[in-house]
Amino acid sequence: MSIVVAGTVAFDAIETPFGKTDKIIGGSGTYISLAASYFYGNIKLVSVVGDDFPKTMFTNFNKRGIYTDGVQVMKGKKSFFWSGKYHLDMNTRDTLKTELNVLADFNPILPDTYRKCDVVMLGNIEPNLQMQVINQLAVRPKLIAMDTMNYWMNNAKKALDKVLRMVDMLIINDEEARQLANEYAIAKAAKAILGRYQLKYLVIKKGEHGALLFSGDQIFFAPALPLEEVFDPTGAGDTFAGGFIGYLAQTKNITFTNMKRAIIYGSAMASFCVEKFGPQRLMEIKKTNITKRVNEFVDLMKVTMK
Amino acid sequence: MSIVVAGTVAFDAIETPFGKTDKIIGGSGTYISLAASYFYGNIKLVSVVGDDFPKTMFTNFNKRGIYTDGVQVMKGKKSFFWSGKYHLDMNTRDTLKTELNVLADFNPILPDTYRKCDVVMLGNIEPNLQMQVINQLAVRPKLIAMDTMNYWMNNAKKALDKVLRMVDMLIINDEEARQLANEYAIAKAAKAILGRYQLKYLVIKKGEHGALLFSGDQIFFAPALPLEEVFDPTGAGDTFAGGFIGYLAQTKNITFTNMKRAIIYGSAMASFCVEKFGPQRLMEIKKTNITKRVNEFVDLMKVTMK
Repeated sequence: MSIVVAGTVAFDAIETPFGKTDKIIGGSGTYISLAASYFYGNIKLVSVVGDDFPKTMFTNFNKRGIYTDGVQVMKGKKSFFWSGKYHLDMNTRDTLKTELNVLADFNPILPDTYRKCDVVMLGNIEPNLQMQVINQLAVRPKLIAMDTMNYWMNNAKKALDKVLRMVDMLIINDEEARQLANEYAIAKAAKAILGRYQLKYLVIKKGEHGALLFSGDQIFFAPALPLEEVFDPTGAGDTFAGGFIGYLAQTKNITFTNMKRAIIYGSAMASFCVEKFGPQRLMEIKKTNITKRVNEFVDLMKVTMK
Repeated sequence: MSIVVAGTVAFDAIETPFGKTDKIIGGSGTYISLAASYFYGNIKLVSVVGDDFPKTMFTNFNKRGIYTDGVQVMKGKKSFFWSGKYHLDMNTRDTLKTELNVLADFNPILPDTYRKCDVVMLGNIEPNLQMQVINQLAVRPKLIAMDTMNYWMNNAKKALDKVLRMVDMLIINDEEARQLANEYAIAKAAKAILGRYQLKYLVIKKGEHGALLFSGDQIFFAPALPLEEVFDPTGAGDTFAGGFIGYLAQTKNITFTNMKRAIIYGSAMASFCVEKFGPQRLMEIKKTNITKRVNEFVDLMKVTMK
């Protein structure tokens, strides 16, 4: 299986109650690919950067089995930049600055080697761009999953509605699900979203409260690990998606039963992500760390009713 | 095993986005006892009411194996009354009215038949009253559990600190745990509370996000069922505690492993409680409803990692 990941590769500057960073590497494409690379070695990244983006990061990606042929480098332009500040609860944040830069003219083009793939993960970018990626695929992948956010619900609803009907799976957070469905109760929101867009699968991420997987009438719930320290939540949702997709590709098994396992792996990856600023932890952990963390999740929810 | 339950037996008037009630029966003692009565038939209720409280409810209690010898009826006085209004999210509410009435002079006295029991559940009442119940026990029970609330942390901290050191287990919600520990992260708050009060067990209830059980270094997480309708959350936390304690008494097994099961039963009972106003559902469900609901919980969190 090969995985195509479309998303941003960018710079972030982050402020949390625990400290602040200068410009560090970020972007949904970065987090998704890095997390997936722990499970699978054939990841094809589609994105755009300016020529201010460090070449060493391309080397890092490539070493981890992440192909960057589809990452356009725009000469004389700057990479996308976001800066934000987290509140004490770490669940809410204020955007301090958004500089679109290269993202304003992004026109994702899949290299020929990308066009036949098995799994596609569309990070949170403009819905028309997500559609453009799908339209360039030569064959229908086994799974197309996408993320999105409130901004596109408010500003590009028509395109969002269209792309949602083209994918198999949506991975969003609880607030986004509530807004998309216009339903407060998560179970009702999930039913509405699955029905309206004829999705096969829906994941609703609840941050520190875990994640829910819906498919038809089936529901699975996975908790988040009760962490003593959340250092920086940036990228945790993308990291979850990357671990999830990576595990599915590794196991070559796209079923509800296997997706339940994939959610545990995604949750485990996200729990590492928040331990340091930016994607740093995602470049230093070992496979043994992941196995240990996954076992902690399994123990956390293990119960036998006799 | 016999269970002693101390708590309020009272009137509530409730307003939710779905409707409002006149005075209906409520109180922590009511919810705890009713929920526990589905599992165990020897429950000894300690409380106080005015002579405005309906005699038929005593009959209901007694029919369900809930002894009311320890429920004082104060002549010429009114029962405790609370009225509140829930916001759309159903997690926050405003208190509209609190009339202490008989509760102002409550002096819990255990009848002789109450003094030897196996499990004690102290509902959310003034910490000195909780202490008074403990001090009247003839032998140390196998488990003393208690609830409390922010109000006592603000207004009776010294007594609260004292009673917390006399019990085995605390069952509170996440906001209360954060305030009691002065720690935002739940895992840190739990560690601080267990350590400071030398508690054997701690349950932190997170409403629609489930519940966590802590004991030493062990943690168990149980989700809440993703419900499409939450009609009235009043009493859900007490119902959880009642189901939990009732299951422990029924199975005569006070260990961490069995408490994990008890949490599923408590969660199942709470999921019924919210389906109608007040304790109505807790007087009409059948044991088969509970078994079915418990199975839904088990399915919701069932995963095999191969």
